[in-house]
Formats: sequence, C-alpha cells, structure tokens
Amino acid sequence: MAHEQSNGANRAVDLSHHLNLKIRSRHPSPLKDIIRLMSMEGMVSLAGLPHPSLFPVHTTSVTSSDPSASTEIELKLSNDQKIPLSAFFQYGTGAGNAQLREWARDFTQLIHQPAYQDFNILLHPGNTNAWGKVVGLLCEEGDYILCESYTYPSAQAYWIPQKNYAAPIAMDGQGIRDHILEETLKAWDTTHPGVRRPHVLYLVSVGSNQAGVTMGPERRRKVYDVCVKYDIIIVEDDPYSFIQYPEQFLSSLAPSFLKYDYQGRVIRLESFSKTLAPGLRLGYFIANSMLAERLLRATEVETQDPPGLSQAVVLSLLQNWGMDGYLTWLQNLRLEYQKRRDWMIDAFAQHFRLVGASETPQLETADGLVALMGDVPVFSFVPPTGGMFIWAKFHLSQNPAFKKMQFDGTVDDPEQAFAGSLWARFAEELVLLTPGSYYHPWQGQDKITTKARGAEPETTHFRFSFSMTTKEEMALGISRLARVVRLSWEV
Amino acid sequence: MAHEQSNGANRAVDLSHHLNLKIRSRHPSPLKDIIRLMSMEGMVSLAGLPHPSLFPVHTTSVTSSDPSASTEIELKLSNDQKIPLSAFFQYGTGAGNAQLREWARDFTQLIHQPAYQDFNILLHPGNTNAWGKVVGLLCEEGDYILCESYTYPSAQAYWIPQKNYAAPIAMDGQGIRDHILEETLKAWDTTHPGVRRPHVLYLVSVGSNQAGVTMGPERRRKVYDVCVKYDIIIVEDDPYSFIQYPEQFLSSLAPSFLKYDYQGRVIRLESFSKTLAPGLRLGYFIANSMLAERLLRATEVETQDPPGLSQAVVLSLLQNWGMDGYLTWLQNLRLEYQKRRDWMIDAFAQHFRLVGASETPQLETADGLVALMGDVPVFSFVPPTGGMFIWAKFHLSQNPAFKKMQFDGTVDDPEQAFAGSLWARFAEELVLLTPGSYYHPWQGQDKITTKARGAEPETTHFRFSFSMTTKEEMALGISRLARVVRLSWEV
Repeated sequence: MAHEQSNGANRAVDLSHHLNLKIRSRHPSPLKDIIRLMSMEGMVSLAGLPHPSLFPVHTTSVTSSDPSASTEIELKLSNDQKIPLSAFFQYGTGAGNAQLREWARDFTQLIHQPAYQDFNILLHPGNTNAWGKVVGLLCEEGDYILCESYTYPSAQAYWIPQKNYAAPIAMDGQGIRDHILEETLKAWDTTHPGVRRPHVLYLVSVGSNQAGVTMGPERRRKVYDVCVKYDIIIVEDDPYSFIQYPEQFLSSLAPSFLKYDYQGRVIRLESFSKTLAPGLRLGYFIANSMLAERLLRATEVETQDPPGLSQAVVLSLLQNWGMDGYLTWLQNLRLEYQKRRDWMIDAFAQHFRLVGASETPQLETADGLVALMGDVPVFSFVPPTGGMFIWAKFHLSQNPAFKKMQFDGTVDDPEQAFAGSLWARFAEELVLLTPGSYYHPWQGQDKITTKARGAEPETTHFRFSFSMTTKEEMALGISRLARVVRLSWEV
Repeated sequence: MAHEQSNGANRAVDLSHHLNLKIRSRHPSPLKDIIRLMSMEGMVSLAGLPHPSLFPVHTTSVTSSDPSASTEIELKLSNDQKIPLSAFFQYGTGAGNAQLREWARDFTQLIHQPAYQDFNILLHPGNTNAWGKVVGLLCEEGDYILCESYTYPSAQAYWIPQKNYAAPIAMDGQGIRDHILEETLKAWDTTHPGVRRPHVLYLVSVGSNQAGVTMGPERRRKVYDVCVKYDIIIVEDDPYSFIQYPEQFLSSLAPSFLKYDYQGRVIRLESFSKTLAPGLRLGYFIANSMLAERLLRATEVETQDPPGLSQAVVLSLLQNWGMDGYLTWLQNLRLEYQKRRDWMIDAFAQHFRLVGASETPQLETADGLVALMGDVPVFSFVPPTGGMFIWAKFHLSQNPAFKKMQFDGTVDDPEQAFAGSLWARFAEELVLLTPGSYYHPWQGQDKITTKARGAEPETTHFRFSFSMTTKEEMALGISRLARVVRLSWEV
C-alpha cells in the first residue's frame, strides 16, 4: 500500500469533486483582497479601516500558570512589540495571525507528522464553528454522514436541520470497526437505493465524546484504507488528543489520522478549548491547500478572523512556554484528568461491587467492568483511556419498574421512557448526568425508538463526566445516584 | 397610523411566517439545556465541562483610555470578582454574559427607545457573522433581498452563493427612497412573475458603507410604513450610528428604525467594531423575542458564545466608564473621524477646484461638490454626514482614453473596463482606493455590465476612506491621485 512507503513527500491528490456546490461559487471577499495590498511598502491606503489610535485598549497583561502549573508568569502585550497589540484589535485577512499559524504548523509537524507535504493551517473560532464550516464545505442536503454509533450531539444539531442523516458505524473498544465501515459502503446502493453514498466520515477518535474510546494505530490504518478505497473525506474532530491516559505520554499517544494521510483526505479540527480554555473560541484547521482555501473563503464572509485578544494571549503564552513547555502543560493536564477519572471509579467502588465483565456471563454485551448492587448488575463501562467521560451502559433487565413498563406495552419505547424518568429522578436528587439519548445518531423520523434504531434492548446509556467535580463532590454525587438506584432496582 | 400613538407599550406581532424552513427545525442544543440545570443550588453535575482550575490564565489587566481619551485607566479581571474571570473562559449558554446583555438593553432603551416592549438582546461575534445568521433565519434559496443601490460587499458575498439576489432601491441624499421601495414591491408580481416578493430589507442606513449617506427621521418613518404595508423585515446593520457628524451629538443623531418599530419587525445589528475595536469580534442583536430565540438556536450550533476575553474586557470597560463615559467616548470618536473627513476634503481642495454641483449644469447627476481640474469635472461627492467614507462619482465624459474605449466598441462594458485600469494606475502610483464595483448589488449573471444594470453611463465610483491615514498621508495620497488624473484626463 502506498502509504506504507510514505515519508511525508507525498502531495495531496485532487479531491475537489467533494466540494459542496455553494462553496464552489464563493469568491474571495473583495475587501479582504484589498487588505493584502494595503501592506505594500509606501502605499497610501484610502481603502479604509478604523484607526488603531482610536482603539481604547493599549496594553494587556496576563498572569498565567507556567507549564508545570507551579508558579505564575506575567505576559505583557503592548503596542511597542514586534506585532503591536493594536494589530490584534484590527480587522485581519480571515486566516488569523501568521505567527500562530506558523506555531501550529511546527506543532503539527512535530506531533502528527502528516504523510503528505502540502497541508495548510487556518485558524478558526472553535470546533463547533469549524464543523459547521466543514458541513458547508462538503455536504449537500440529503447526504448521509458516516459517524460513530454514538456521536457528538452538537455536531448533529448542526446537520439535522440541513437534512443530513447519520450513517452510524458500529464500534468496539477501538472505535468504529473498519470492516463494518467497508460493508456499509459496499452495500450502500442496495441498502439505500437512489441515495448518494456517504463521502464524509465524522469522528471524535480520541476519548470520543460519549464512549471515552480511543482508536489505536492499527485500526486507524485500516479505516484510512477503507476511506481511500471508497473516496471518503475523514473529519477528525479531536479536542481530546492530549487528554489521553497512556503509560508513556508522547510516545504512546494515539496517532492522528494525519500520520496515515498520504492523499490529503483528512480535515483535522484542533481546538484550544480543552487544553487552554473554551472561552478563547480558538482553534485551527489542518487540511490540504485546496480545502483550506475554500474554508478561508467561507471564513471571510461567515466569521472573519478569530477573536484578536484570544489570538494575542495564546500566541504570547505559547511563545513564553516554548514547545517543550506546552508539552509539559499537556502532560500535567492529562494527569489531572486521569486523577479525576480514578476518583470517579473509586466513588463507584464505594457503592457498587465492581467486577470484570467476564464474571457476569448473563450480560452478553457488557465490556470492561460491571457495577453490581448486591447481585444485581446495574451498569457496565470500559474505563476510559482518554477524554473526560465514562460512558455507562445501564442494564434494565432486572429493574422491576422497567419490566412492568415493558410488559404493559403502553409506551412505544420503554427503554427511552424509563431512561427519561430515571434521569429526572437523578436530577431531583441533585445529581446531573448526561442522557445517552443525546448521542443517538439521527437517521430520520422513522428511526427514533430503541427498536427502530436497532439498538440493544433492555439497556440505556448515561454519560458521567469526571472533569468538573472535586473528589468529595463526586463521592456525594455517586452516593445520591446509588440511593436512586437502590430504590428503583428494589435491592 | 398606529405608531404615531405608540408609547413603547406595543408588543411584537407574530412574524413567524418569515422564518426560513431550516431554522424552524432547529431544536435547543441538548447540551446547552443541561448547562442551565448545572447552576441549580446543590447540584452535583456529572454532565461535564473542562475544569476551570486548569485554565492557564488567572488574571488579565488592561490599560485603556478613559472616556475623554486624556488619561489611562487600569482594569483588573481576576477570579476573585463577582463574576470570576474563569467564567468568561468557560463554555456558556450561547446568549453571552447576562450583565453585558443587561447593559445593551439599558443602552438600547436610552438611545433608541424602541416603540415596542418585548425586544430581546443576544450577543454575537461581529456583524459579519450576525448578518449570516439573519440570512439563515429569513431567506430561502432564490429570494431577492431589498437593499440600497450600492450595498456592502461582504453582505453580498455571503448571500450570492446562497442563490439570493439583490433588489436594489434607488437612493438620494437621505438613503433609499420610500416611494421607489413601494413601487418596486407593488409591481413585483408583474416585474418578476413567479418569484417570491422580497420580505427582507438590508440597510446600512447611517454613513452607509459606500455612499456615506444617513437616513433622516422622516424618511425612516415612511420606509417603515411601506415595510408594514408589504410585510417586510428590516435588517438595520448599523456600525456607524455613532460616527455621525451632526451639530448636536445625541439630540440630533439619526434615530434607529427601532424608534418607529411598533410591530417588532426590525432586527438591529450592533457592533463594537467601529466604536471600540474590530478584533474584539463582539456585538449584539436587538430583535423581537421570537426571532431572538431562533437566532439563539443558530448560535448554539454555529458559533457558541462570543469570545470570553472580549466580553470580559468590554464589560469591565463599560462598567468603569459608565453610560455617560461611553457617550463621551463616542462623542470624541466622531469628532476624530469628522476631523479626518475634513482633512480629506482639504486635500481634494489642494489639487482640484471644488464647486457646488449647481455650478456644473452639464453634469446632471452630480450632487454636493464637484472636483474640477482646470475646467474639467473629474468627480463629484456629497460630503458625508456619517461613517468613514467619501463616495465619489467619477465623470468620464471628458476623459479621452475612456471616450476612445467607448468609441472603439471593443469592450462590453467600457465604464467598468476603464475603472479597472484607472484603479490599477492609482495603485501603481501607491494610492489605494476601493473600486465602486465592489458595491454593485448582485442581480444575477445577466446584469453585470453598467448598461445591463441600468447604471448611469459615463460614470464610475470610487470610495475614499478617511479613517486610517494621517493628514500628511492623505495629502500625499491625493497628490498622487491628482497626478494620475492629470495624465489620464490630459489636462
């Protein structure tokens, strides 16, 4: 296979047939064009921008953690610097600050080692907006989008009103299964006569937003090969890349799809939301030049440059820390979240008996650990190797209230109805979980019940986030949850 | 007429039939829903956000101008405050900071005095993005959008690939003419059989981005009445409201359409780009509750909250300055831009003889002042009463090169071809103007020549911005321009 010989000397292949019809007709914003001419030596520009002397903010100082979060450092931004602060307060060209893009390029080269040369960096105001731009770049109304069997709700909330549908691919502990992906695509014309075969795969392949599952190298290579065979663009939405919990930090992180991408068919969405702060509204695209240019056209008319202060502060911070400093920061960050994950599992262990799934052969579909109350299995989960979440499958077969609801046959979807009432009971007892139903891929109005979706009967999911709470709060929350469970399961 | 009796006690009428089909099907983002529950007293949230203790920035200090731009003031943002800085770095609900929205509501009430009660405020990341959201809110493919006879290029750049078209309305020195608007709408079904009558009017009605024209109260009232009669939503894109040059600052500013809006059919786009700084990427919508709720749904999935640091700094600045201080700032700002406008007109006067249009009866369509070189009229303009631009109409009838081009008949559109070469000559001589062609409303591929657009023959426009340059640079720029003119017009 070509990519096995790849040494990064490859160039992107022509993928322009993937472009949405509307994005093809986007021309450079004429005003942005002029912004480039403005910087010509000696030019008197009467083409107009607000005058920077009339911006009220003159300096910005920030106290920040050092990379090891042990002391504070001071960052000073002013108009006396090489790039004056006022430049960050002015209109820009849409692509974002050049130095920050240069940093992102170096970081990408160092960490992800893309298998082709001519990749490009374009800043964006957060992955939510970036995903919207990608849908606008690639998808037409009616298109199906390949995704994980549970997928990120906000991504879907964008595409559902666009009349896009999910084509979910079954997962295991390594993420989506390549042979299921291949079978889905191979059989598409038979299973979906008259519907365009999906050409976009949306993945949160590290610590995925619901399942906490991370896709390893071998699986990635296989998925990539299927995508080459069926001409799929892979959109790698990867805010959790550095919130992984491997033995060795850098050397054993799951690689990006970029590492296998000898054709330039990966669009990677990088975000500073999880590594620095969400309120920055700052991240960047990594994509082949043709796609990046089209995304820039969309950026000019949809959002313009990402926020200037965010760019200025992040650039200053990264320059101060240096590349090694940033990696130290990321290493500490994932240790912090790993500690929180362990607190959560400890809290489970205080109220439930945790046993390996192999010890509960009656639960055929349980993976990882099963949480028992008395002898009753309540939920099972795979301890996450990345991200901020535990994805728990609740087993309802021994819950009397659920069984009654199922037996009565008065509701269409007893799993969903029961999950809703259980979630509300938790919330009444002041413990807030995220319902698994938020993550059901939207396949159309006729596939909304558990049965119609082909989902596993007598189960439902809840997502536990371990990112926000202290150890004491977690213990309190899980004790409240255990009380609700005890009453509901009558044990 | 109802609005003449209006005292602000009116409520918005039902305008939901204007909604785009896609926006009707936007549901609240499920995750945003949960963010609201998170803040319930005593709740242990396992629903997940990044932990604020792991955000690297702890304090931000800003030195800023005081309202009179005479001294510097220091603003300190930290986690010890009532709203901790970390809250601005966290994910939000989409609507933006509540205090900033409260400020915007008070400011709107004070300055614009809307003629209905139940208006709403929603923060947005700049008017470029806000306009895109409004197109998504109201327009379907194929819709015509009512606009000024020259309109803002970036607004058009958004709508053209959506297959929307401009329905330009002729202007005079007060902006679009109400009876032309009415005639256009009345005759629509005859002039555009089978095409939906426009239901959205896009206006930059103060210091409009090209013509520098400001619409006065009486015209606004009449335009509003036509919009009621023909059920039009008015989108008031108004970044220059406070860059007006009246005798008395507050008392004689042109009112917003909100003042006449007793039905809630105005969506006002407010921006801090021109009053504070563009790089903040911050502004707000003022709209009736129904429209604001739909815009919030779009915000949740398209952009999320505006940038946190921008919100924090702007809120802190506005709180420090107070409402009076902000008005003082705005007053000074417009004096600064007024000074620059006068520099520009002075620079014209150094190289051209400026006479009243009535003194050049041969130029039937010249308004305001005419710039003559020798006895040859070169361009005419109305000294702007707002904004940052002089919109100059160049008169080509005495230009030998143009006449030759016109006579030869070798080009389709001699006005446009000549304007392009003149613009390039200016740029070669290092003076950069904005071509008027950028502002031509897009009416479809068959209406791109001067003739097909029905534009005035033997004229073309350039836009001079007086915002950015010093007095000396302006003088230099206009002397370069005069040299090119002298050669080109052979005077």
